[in-house]
Amino acid sequence: MTESDVVIERLTLIGVGLIGGSLARSLKQAGAVGEVVGLARTEATLRKALELGVIDRAETEVERAAQSASVVVIATPMQVMPQMLADLDRCVGPDTVITDVGSVKGYVVEAAQKQCPHNVARFVPGHPIAGKEHAGVEASYADLFVDKSVILTPTKHTDNHAVQLVTSVWQQTGADVQTMDVRVHDRLLAATSHLPHMVAYALVNFLAKHSESETLFKLAAGGFYDFTRIASSDPVMWRDICMTNREEILQALKGYRSSIDTLFSAIEAGDGDALHECFQRAKLSRDKGLDSKNKVSAK
Amino acid sequence: MTESDVVIERLTLIGVGLIGGSLARSLKQAGAVGEVVGLARTEATLRKALELGVIDRAETEVERAAQSASVVVIATPMQVMPQMLADLDRCVGPDTVITDVGSVKGYVVEAAQKQCPHNVARFVPGHPIAGKEHAGVEASYADLFVDKSVILTPTKHTDNHAVQLVTSVWQQTGADVQTMDVRVHDRLLAATSHLPHMVAYALVNFLAKHSESETLFKLAAGGFYDFTRIASSDPVMWRDICMTNREEILQALKGYRSSIDTLFSAIEAGDGDALHECFQRAKLSRDKGLDSKNKVSAK
Repeated sequence: MTESDVVIERLTLIGVGLIGGSLARSLKQAGAVGEVVGLARTEATLRKALELGVIDRAETEVERAAQSASVVVIATPMQVMPQMLADLDRCVGPDTVITDVGSVKGYVVEAAQKQCPHNVARFVPGHPIAGKEHAGVEASYADLFVDKSVILTPTKHTDNHAVQLVTSVWQQTGADVQTMDVRVHDRLLAATSHLPHMVAYALVNFLAKHSESETLFKLAAGGFYDFTRIASSDPVMWRDICMTNREEILQALKGYRSSIDTLFSAIEAGDGDALHECFQRAKLSRDKGLDSKNKVSAK
Repeated sequence: MTESDVVIERLTLIGVGLIGGSLARSLKQAGAVGEVVGLARTEATLRKALELGVIDRAETEVERAAQSASVVVIATPMQVMPQMLADLDRCVGPDTVITDVGSVKGYVVEAAQKQCPHNVARFVPGHPIAGKEHAGVEASYADLFVDKSVILTPTKHTDNHAVQLVTSVWQQTGADVQTMDVRVHDRLLAATSHLPHMVAYALVNFLAKHSESETLFKLAAGGFYDFTRIASSDPVMWRDICMTNREEILQALKGYRSSIDTLFSAIEAGDGDALHECFQRAKLSRDKGLDSKNKVSAK
């Protein structure tokens, strides 16, 4: 039995949506988990999760949900996480490892230090980078994390064994697990994920406010709807991301705005050579990035 | 035999790439064309087009290509179109109808008036709105235009019969053909197509110039590559679009920039309610637009 084949006796999900639900399904499919206990905000979600076989037991109190858990995964909206960490700090056992799936890690790390001081060494901040346009446990599926990146951002105070355990949990879902400094994570994600979402939201809102809005949306080709798919993501989640990764997103937006300004000036000046170079560079960078990405996935 | 079942005795393609090639394939498949004659910039393209059966005869001189043509389709990069219109003006017969597939119509209409004065009444400006990430005759296929919009922008001087003929040609490819004022076309397309491309090019270039560029492209999830697919479009084509629809694109970019600024201010102020409303509105607008779009396609 290799390290990545470890079996989790009891997994507790705080929040049973797309991410938590898909993690449970994946570990069950791999035979890597004993019991899955779920805690959710609504009884309807818990009932649905039980019906779908995503969880084995439903709880509505954190104390009961976390009892004797090997691993607790916090998979709630991010702004609820500090309260969950505080609740868990009062009730988890000395061997329980806690992790989360929040998209911004500095915010969660700070919350853990403040709200979860007795168990912070066994808290491993994590971020599975997986699509989130469809929310809810109904949308969860076992293969969501195959070939996706999961980034862990332990601090110097994080217990090594806890990091290893969380790493092996995610490896069993087929994900590629990496560790990264928490500030580097938030800066990189601001550029590769948070910025593109802002760009798409701003574009759709520009068209929505346009005087010919209805015609525009009708005329838009399929490519436009592919392009703006990410503007259909969960507004609560994106509000939370903007509130918790504020500085890094503002920095990325500033850089992007200057990229828009460069393009604006070249169009205004009618500078065909500059425009061609700009489009050529973008095409080459994207195609090269995609190429190296595909090589990584094919490993 | 209905009007849309007309057979074109001889179709001449000036430019045999994705669009011209797909049009020929589609009309051949529908049994709606006699002979297809192709003229291209390189002999390699003509050879390939003959091999693929996209064209029946290859020519390298406009005079020979356009001889006895029922319909001539100009499907070259846009900045070549004025010269092609001038060449055609010297050699087409009095019954030949000319059309084009350029993405910007004001530019082409003006060129036709100047360069093609003797035949401008039989010139029908056209724009099939169909995906163009892959270029070249090798990428052409018969179903490219099924359920896509084709917009014709005749002027008050355009012959009605010519408009009807070009309409029926496109209808046989499965496209939804509409006519529109040339200035309205250029304004709407600036918002729904040209702007999204600028937004995507600027985003990719921002990441390409970033000091951690390589890591960023590796870390970017599949969603990022879907989102930026349009930044892999043909740089020459997009240079031409920017050079020929300058004013409308600048107007759209200004509006978009103000949409970005609104978002920037809300993030800076940490205004969660404004952010939530902004994301919610974008999601609703896009989903509603997609819904009405799907209803149109399902007709």
